[in-house]
Amino acid sequence: MKKDGMKDFPRIGIIGGGQLGKMMAQEAKKMGLFVSVLDPTPGCPASSVSDIQIVGDFYDEEKLEELVKQSDVATYDIEHIATEPLKRLQDRGYSILPSPYLLEVIQDKLAQKEILKKAGIPVARFMKIERIAVEEFKKFGYPLVQKARKGGYDGRGVAVIRSEEDMAKALHTGSYVEELVDIEKELAVMVARSTKGEIRCYPVVEMVFDEKANICDMVIAPARIEKDLEERATEIAKEVVKVLDGVGVFGVEMFLDKKGRILVNEIAPRPHNSGHYTIEACATSQFEQHIRAISGLPLGSTKLLSPAVMVNLLGEEGYEGTPLIEGFEEALSMEGLYFHFYGKKTTRPYRKMGHVTVIDDDVEKALEKAQKAKSILKVKAR
Amino acid sequence: MKKDGMKDFPRIGIIGGGQLGKMMAQEAKKMGLFVSVLDPTPGCPASSVSDIQIVGDFYDEEKLEELVKQSDVATYDIEHIATEPLKRLQDRGYSILPSPYLLEVIQDKLAQKEILKKAGIPVARFMKIERIAVEEFKKFGYPLVQKARKGGYDGRGVAVIRSEEDMAKALHTGSYVEELVDIEKELAVMVARSTKGEIRCYPVVEMVFDEKANICDMVIAPARIEKDLEERATEIAKEVVKVLDGVGVFGVEMFLDKKGRILVNEIAPRPHNSGHYTIEACATSQFEQHIRAISGLPLGSTKLLSPAVMVNLLGEEGYEGTPLIEGFEEALSMEGLYFHFYGKKTTRPYRKMGHVTVIDDDVEKALEKAQKAKSILKVKAR
Repeated sequence: MKKDGMKDFPRIGIIGGGQLGKMMAQEAKKMGLFVSVLDPTPGCPASSVSDIQIVGDFYDEEKLEELVKQSDVATYDIEHIATEPLKRLQDRGYSILPSPYLLEVIQDKLAQKEILKKAGIPVARFMKIERIAVEEFKKFGYPLVQKARKGGYDGRGVAVIRSEEDMAKALHTGSYVEELVDIEKELAVMVARSTKGEIRCYPVVEMVFDEKANICDMVIAPARIEKDLEERATEIAKEVVKVLDGVGVFGVEMFLDKKGRILVNEIAPRPHNSGHYTIEACATSQFEQHIRAISGLPLGSTKLLSPAVMVNLLGEEGYEGTPLIEGFEEALSMEGLYFHFYGKKTTRPYRKMGHVTVIDDDVEKALEKAQKAKSILKVKAR
Repeated sequence: MKKDGMKDFPRIGIIGGGQLGKMMAQEAKKMGLFVSVLDPTPGCPASSVSDIQIVGDFYDEEKLEELVKQSDVATYDIEHIATEPLKRLQDRGYSILPSPYLLEVIQDKLAQKEILKKAGIPVARFMKIERIAVEEFKKFGYPLVQKARKGGYDGRGVAVIRSEEDMAKALHTGSYVEELVDIEKELAVMVARSTKGEIRCYPVVEMVFDEKANICDMVIAPARIEKDLEERATEIAKEVVKVLDGVGVFGVEMFLDKKGRILVNEIAPRPHNSGHYTIEACATSQFEQHIRAISGLPLGSTKLLSPAVMVNLLGEEGYEGTPLIEGFEEALSMEGLYFHFYGKKTTRPYRKMGHVTVIDDDVEKALEKAQKAKSILKVKAR
C-alpha cells in the first residue's frame, strides 16, 4: 500500500494449475492482476490463462519458494502439497493463504475432525484407531466408515465396513473410523473470509454423487431443504471457518441425515466443485471471491441471481487419451446452459474434464435441463 | 467435423490482443478452445490469457498468414489491419470471419455508408467530397461533420464545421461530409449472426460520450426509450448485418435525433465497447457469442438478466506510464459492481484501461452507482 492511498495490484501465486487454479486465474486476470502458477504438468489447465507457469512439483521446496517470492500472496488449488516449506516461508513473512498451518490440519482428516469436535461443531461420531484390526472396528461398532487420515480425494481413501466380512476392504494406512451416517442429502456451503475478518456465505447447495465412482456429479443451488435447516447449515459453516481462523474461500461439506441432524463431513480450504455454479448464478463467483479474500480486498456479494444446477463432465469409462467431446453443439443450443472445458490434455474414466451450469428461474427445470445436458455430452478420446 | 458426430474443438486465432481480444480469449479458454493472438506489443492484454502470442504487426503478411494457418477460424478485435493478405488467404480456403471483404467495406466509412444507403438503411444525409475546399462544404451546407474515410477511431477523424470560420479545423485526408445530426441519444445494438445464418440481437443500449475526448464513456442497458423505438432500432440493426452478410458479432451504432429518426452511424465488425455489459448482465456475453458465431456453433441466449450500466476507466489527464489505480478497494466494496482491468502496461490520458459494470434491478440506481464508481476510480501512473 502506498502512502497516497493508491494501491498496486497484488501479484497472485497459485500452487496447482488444475481447473480450480484455471478459474481463479481467469478471474484474477479479469481484474488485471499478475498471476503465476506452479504445476508439474507443462501446459496444465491454468497455464494458458496465467502470466507464468513454473513447472515443478508441489513438494519441491525450491519451486514453492520461487512462486511464493514472486507473489504478494500465494494460495493453492489442491491440498496435497508440502506444508513444511510453506510454513517456513510464512514464518519469514511471506503471505500464503489459507495459512499452511491451517492446511496441515486439513490434510489430516482426523486432526480436522478433532478440532471441529472440540469447538462444538456437530460431526459424526468417530474414533482414532491404533492399528487396522478387527478388534478396533468391533470396539467402535458396525456399520462404520474407515477413512484414510491423509491423501484421500474424490472418493479415494474411504472404505465402508458393514461387518467383519468386509475386513478385506479395509485400508492399510493411517486412518480413523466414523459412524456410517444415514444420509438424507449431502449439503455444502461455500464460505469466504477475508484477511480483515469479513465473512460471507453462499447459499446452501445439494451435492449429488455418482454412486459408482463416489465422485460429486451434480450440484443443485439452492438446496431443496427447509428454511431452518438452511439457516443451521449456514451458521455451522460460518462457525467452522472462524474456528479454523481461515482466510480465503472454503467448501464446507455436510451431511443432512434422516433424523434431521447436520454433521460436518469435511472442509476444502479453497474454491470447491460445489461452488462452480457461482460463476454464472451468483453476483460474485467463488473464484473472484477467493482472490478478493486473500488479497485484503472487500468481499463481493454472494447473492444468488438465479437457481442453478451444475453437472460435472467426467471422462467416459473405456476412453483414455486426447479428449474429444460428443454432443457439444446440441448442448450449446440449450437456453441458459454454460459450458466449461478445462483443457486437460488427457481424459481418463471419471476424470473431471469440464462442467456445465444451467440456470433457470425454476430449480426443477434447471435440474431437468442439466440431466439432459449430462445425457448428451460425453467426453471420449480420439 | 468427424464422421462419428464428434467434434474437435475449433482453434481460434485473434488478430489484435487489446481488451477485446483479451475478453474473447477468456471466453474461448473457458470453453477449452486453443487461442492464438497476433499483436505487435509483447505482453499485450490478451497474451497472458491465450495459448500463444505471435508478436507481429497487423500489416505483416507473413505473421497474418502464420496466425490464420494455425487456426480453424481467425477473427480480429480491431479494424485497422491489412485486408489484402487476408482476402488472399480466404480465397485459398482459410476461414476468416467476419470476411475480410466485408472488413474492407467497413474500413472505408464512405463505402460503408453508401452500401447502407443503397440497401435502404436510414443514415444521415452525406456527400462524397472531391477535395478539401470551402466550395465543397458550402455546396453541402452548414453545419456539417467532416469524417475521414479511413483510420478514425474513438473520436479521431471527425471535425465539426459549423461555418466557413471553422475551415481551419478541416481534416486534410480522404473524407466525406455528413449532416450534423441533432442528437437526442446515441444508441447501439450488438447483433450476432452465425455461419449458419442464425441471428440474435442484444438489447438496445444508450451510449454516453465524454464530450471533451469524444470517447464512449458510459453505456446504459437497456436504453431508456419507447418500446417502438426499441423495436425499430433492433430491426434496423438486424437488417444492417444481413445486408453486409456478416458473420460474428457486430456493434451497430445509431443516432436517435430530436425528431425521432433513427440513423445508423457506423458499424464495428467485432465485439464492441457498448456490449461489455453483456458479460455480467446477459445470458451469453458478446465475447462468447462472437466465438460461437464464427465457429459454426449455435448462438446463445441474448436475454438481459439485469439492467446494467458500464463505465469506461480512462487514463486520467496528466498521467502517463505504468498504471496505478486509485479507489480500487472502495469501488470493490460496492454491491453489484464488477471490475475489469485490461493489463495494459502504459496509461495515457483517455486511454481505455478498464471498465466497471454495475448491475441493479433498477437501471437508475445502477446509473447512480456507476457514476459514483467513476468518481472514485482514477487511473493514474506510478
